[in-house]
Amino acid sequence: MKHIGIFLFLAGTVACFLASPRFTQASNVEEAPIFGIRIPAGYRDWRLISVAHEAGNNNDLRAVLGNDVAINAYREGKLPFPDGSIIARLAWRYVPSEENNKVFGRDQSFIAGPPINLQLMVKDSRKYAATGGWGFAQFNDGKPTDEALLKTCFPCHEPAKARDYLFTRYAP
Amino acid sequence: MKHIGIFLFLAGTVACFLASPRFTQASNVEEAPIFGIRIPAGYRDWRLISVAHEAGNNNDLRAVLGNDVAINAYREGKLPFPDGSIIARLAWRYVPSEENNKVFGRDQSFIAGPPINLQLMVKDSRKYAATGGWGFAQFNDGKPTDEALLKTCFPCHEPAKARDYLFTRYAP
Repeated sequence: MKHIGIFLFLAGTVACFLASPRFTQASNVEEAPIFGIRIPAGYRDWRLISVAHEAGNNNDLRAVLGNDVAINAYREGKLPFPDGSIIARLAWRYVPSEENNKVFGRDQSFIAGPPINLQLMVKDSRKYAATGGWGFAQFNDGKPTDEALLKTCFPCHEPAKARDYLFTRYAP
Repeated sequence: MKHIGIFLFLAGTVACFLASPRFTQASNVEEAPIFGIRIPAGYRDWRLISVAHEAGNNNDLRAVLGNDVAINAYREGKLPFPDGSIIARLAWRYVPSEENNKVFGRDQSFIAGPPINLQLMVKDSRKYAATGGWGFAQFNDGKPTDEALLKTCFPCHEPAKARDYLFTRYAP
């Protein structure tokens, strides 16, 4: 329960997909350990799955984006997610907006502050068979986090097994 | 300060752009009053500008999306936003996630619940010259809200004049 870092949803890209233009990776980014995932090029342009706020130690606002394979699967209710699905969870510091509060006339507004990290979940049912078909990665300012953290990802996602280990639901 | 409905950011589509494929509108949706804006087709596929949480009466989680013109202007820091920019603010009920809280081991997780409404801001410097070049609209379940609400939009956006009346900043 302590691994509040690498958590609810996520994605990346897999070495074996490098040949496909759909899985172009940013070449200047280090590969994450265990799962061998790099930050996929263009992930910031992906479509929105949903948004969330984690309070407590996380103290973030987050957006969950999906590549085309993942978004289509979500919209069609396809389970399990097809190989090639990538989910990216972007988190930003949860900060009050004084500017907005002034206009609202009270303290109620919280916006995305500085970026915290990027988490990725990459579906490859053969490569990642031992972890439900998903590979996990986390990057802080482009730097992959260590093995110890990544080992906590799959056990935490197991309660969402019925939805192919994804907690996030598509927001209409 | 009471018009917590139609607020911080937003977009739509304008009758005069109907001929352009870039401004395809959903034909089965009523036109909003005053500014004559309809829900633009495909807005749910637009790229993410940022996310926010409004507490208080709003009690929402929100995502701000932009069409290509708006996203490019944001990324390039272009001010004022070019004509054709459309910004869409989607809001969902702010709901605790028991499922996530169980995994985190404490109450900290809030996710997007049922949709609340869609707000739009459409840039047309000539058509909307009287309101900073922006037209405003709000749709609840596809139905446009009334004139009285829309009249409150621009006055509230005036404090953000230096950023072309947009409160939302691009989240990296």
